[in-house]
Amino acid sequence: MDPSHVQEIPISAGVLVISTSRTEKEDKSGVIIRHLLDEKGISVTYTAVIPDQIQAIRSGVIKALESCNCVLLTGGTGITKDDCTIEAVEPLLEKHLDGFGELFRMKSYEEVGTRMILSRAIAGTIGTNLIFCIPGSPNAATLATREIIIPEVKHLLTHVNK
Amino acid sequence: MDPSHVQEIPISAGVLVISTSRTEKEDKSGVIIRHLLDEKGISVTYTAVIPDQIQAIRSGVIKALESCNCVLLTGGTGITKDDCTIEAVEPLLEKHLDGFGELFRMKSYEEVGTRMILSRAIAGTIGTNLIFCIPGSPNAATLATREIIIPEVKHLLTHVNK
Amino acid sequence: MDPSHVQEIPISAGVLVISTSRTEKEDKSGVIIRHLLDEKGISVTYTAVIPDQIQAIRSGVIKALESCNCVLLTGGTGITKDDCTIEAVEPLLEKHLDGFGELFRMKSYEEVGTRMILSRAIAGTIGTNLIFCIPGSPNAATLATREIIIPEVKHLLTHVNK
Amino acid sequence: MDPSHVQEIPISAGVLVISTSRTEKEDKSGVIIRHLLDEKGISVTYTAVIPDQIQAIRSGVIKALESCNCVLLTGGTGITKDDCTIEAVEPLLEKHLDGFGELFRMKSYEEVGTRMILSRAIAGTIGTNLIFCIPGSPNAATLATREIIIPEVKHLLTHVNK
Amino acid sequence: MDPSHVQEIPISAGVLVISTSRTEKEDKSGVIIRHLLDEKGISVTYTAVIPDQIQAIRSGVIKALESCNCVLLTGGTGITKDDCTIEAVEPLLEKHLDGFGELFRMKSYEEVGTRMILSRAIAGTIGTNLIFCIPGSPNAATLATREIIIPEVKHLLTHVNK
Amino acid sequence: MDPSHVQEIPISAGVLVISTSRTEKEDKSGVIIRHLLDEKGISVTYTAVIPDQIQAIRSGVIKALESCNCVLLTGGTGITKDDCTIEAVEPLLEKHLDGFGELFRMKSYEEVGTRMILSRAIAGTIGTNLIFCIPGSPNAATLATREIIIPEVKHLLTHVNK
Repeated sequence: MDPSHVQEIPISAGVLVISTSRTEKEDKSGVIIRHLLDEKGISVTYTAVIPDQIQAIRSGVIKALESCNCVLLTGGTGITKDDCTIEAVEPLLEKHLDGFGELFRMKSYEEVGTRMILSRAIAGTIGTNLIFCIPGSPNAATLATREIIIPEVKHLLTHVNK
Repeated sequence: MDPSHVQEIPISAGVLVISTSRTEKEDKSGVIIRHLLDEKGISVTYTAVIPDQIQAIRSGVIKALESCNCVLLTGGTGITKDDCTIEAVEPLLEKHLDGFGELFRMKSYEEVGTRMILSRAIAGTIGTNLIFCIPGSPNAATLATREIIIPEVKHLLTHVNK
Repeated sequence: MDPSHVQEIPISAGVLVISTSRTEKEDKSGVIIRHLLDEKGISVTYTAVIPDQIQAIRSGVIKALESCNCVLLTGGTGITKDDCTIEAVEPLLEKHLDGFGELFRMKSYEEVGTRMILSRAIAGTIGTNLIFCIPGSPNAATLATREIIIPEVKHLLTHVNK
Repeated sequence: MDPSHVQEIPISAGVLVISTSRTEKEDKSGVIIRHLLDEKGISVTYTAVIPDQIQAIRSGVIKALESCNCVLLTGGTGITKDDCTIEAVEPLLEKHLDGFGELFRMKSYEEVGTRMILSRAIAGTIGTNLIFCIPGSPNAATLATREIIIPEVKHLLTHVNK
Repeated sequence: MDPSHVQEIPISAGVLVISTSRTEKEDKSGVIIRHLLDEKGISVTYTAVIPDQIQAIRSGVIKALESCNCVLLTGGTGITKDDCTIEAVEPLLEKHLDGFGELFRMKSYEEVGTRMILSRAIAGTIGTNLIFCIPGSPNAATLATREIIIPEVKHLLTHVNK
Repeated sequence: MDPSHVQEIPISAGVLVISTSRTEKEDKSGVIIRHLLDEKGISVTYTAVIPDQIQAIRSGVIKALESCNCVLLTGGTGITKDDCTIEAVEPLLEKHLDGFGELFRMKSYEEVGTRMILSRAIAGTIGTNLIFCIPGSPNAATLATREIIIPEVKHLLTHVNK
């Protein structure tokens, strides 16, 4: 498929901070993600802080998709008993982008070594929208957003809208 | 578990008509369901008409759950290429109530005979809420609501909130 | 949906006998099914005997679907270690018709009592085609074909082609 | 398959009471099930009370299977937040016997009416063994054991060992 | 397992081009794959162009497996609404080779950078056969075939036939 | 989450050798793993040799979890018809650590090149316990245990117990 034939889709991003303890202001990762997207001219039209509960997270994603075509969730991806972001989002995904998690962990490996195995990042599509789940640490959020999501989001949206 | 020990949970019902062609007024099944619930003093606090699209249906369920603890979806349960209510709702359910579909079909059999095999009704829980998906024909909606949902909804809500 | 608006779809049936020991001639259930369909003017355009192996059964279904829009599999539905018809077919189904197995077992119950719990019959759609898996005994094959499949197959095909 | 060709398999039953609050002595359903099996000469070689925890239930089933070829679990099948017997056992089953739950609910319907939709009974095979999950009420345990399991267990074991 | 003990299995490859728009002649990736296999003395005994439809793709795989023990599908692995090769093939796989997709993306990363996250390549077994799904671009097809499939196919076939 | 806030969990490891042909003494990989863990002061409190059978492997895992919070399985991860360790363990896992298999294969790639695609290593949690499935070759067992599991096991246990 020749990329010159396809029209660019305007990006409207949503940022969901998954956390039971932090408020939107206190949360560093959400602020960082919004800042990074803003810097690149990607409009963030929806933000929310959502507690670590499967139903609340699904509700948040579905609400975000009413006005956004690209949703980033940060936090709740670990293996403590509260963490359930992956469990909440995975059944909603239609096409999985296995390469997102793999690339994120490959890049994390350079920063944190074997600790990367705790990074349960995933991405995929819901209809013509993109969903990314990334860990809640500021470093991880920065890495995923700046190094993978920002460079590829336009290209992915073009494909998913073909 | 002794039912005398448990407190009654107030019911707040949502009714979602899944249809691409009908408006809320034109839809008989939605009207019938609301009427039947109303008659029994079950308060319907949310209604909507939603097109036959997986994402729109999920969005509708999640929106309904913001104010309701019992959501009834009518329509989109058949096997035409548009029908996708079951496909939209099933991955969101936590505990499945297989007996709901079975009983509905057992009772439909008395009305429509072998035609009952087309009736893909399901029910289950999302958190402490109940979800019922029933066919869109007025007869099916009446049967499921009057004969099964209304007699059992209080009892089910009590259990799911224990 | 008003059934008078829809056009009738011509039925082209395939009959697959799942058996490692019997030939096509020796198999009573296959002969009975073809006879019952023939009697009702339903054209059987493909028949085969297939051993109890997941891959061979899937291959048989997919080959049958090249010329048929309705495929009946008989045999291999029990719980012996060889039985794998359900395991072979279930992952290929797009929409499941739970009511088919339920109705078949409800009717079997009248004939064989509690023994019906061994009857792992299923049905569903693949694209605009119908698949039915029924036990291999002549009684079960007769019951499923005459009492459920023949009365409903036209109606189901009409719906799945809408 | 001609049943006269197959040899009878001796039954060795295990009874697991799933309950966080009751001891083995206090539990009526476990006592009833053991009594009913005993009356019919079916030897119960393993009994235990297990709390409502997925991991503990799985552990109990697997321990029971070391000495039993037929395991009955009673309790934990409802929809309260603690109930998790179905969730614990279902992923371990190899072949599902959908007819068991259906028949149990059909028979429950005669006793408790629409309340049967709460009955999440299931059965299936693990290797050449049988597993049955039935509700924890004395009536339900009696119904499932006396009316379905006892009449069919020998026949099922013969088939699963073929 | 000592590889010297095992006998070599003759390879018989099938190449399926998944494309709605291209003919077999026009398709560069199919030609490249066949050429690369031929060069290494791997006999290609079946080729076909198959439209982007789940049922047609499954049919193509099953037909190829009648004469091949190694099937390569190229195309239809992206995230446009037509792409469905992964969705068609995944439910047919018995053992998944996660490492194939990971290694392919790790190598793609060196060529295309973060764009690799669009590469939904998978591989696995069906019975004693191997299936590989690779993207439809000539570069991706070359990379996967020359750098991974050709070096490992004999070894994999030996293992899957043990 | 600040790691200084969390208390260290004592590790109690179990080592399960999955093999139909070898005894516990003959098995090199089990010996190597125990030796490596021992060297680092990680106490191995349970060991067993288990044949390549789904039910026996699950039974072994569950028995190990009665006294261990970290279980390593070695062997049975390939694609021969006997290999079923992954198939046995995967349905028991609650949270999957995809990064474990990815990192193991990334490191294997440096040792064995493209042959790494045969390495079906997985890891995940069951309750507050960790499960690792690694190939049965001495090199693979050494690599996974020394390079990934030993460096991360304390950190993982701390998280899973939060």
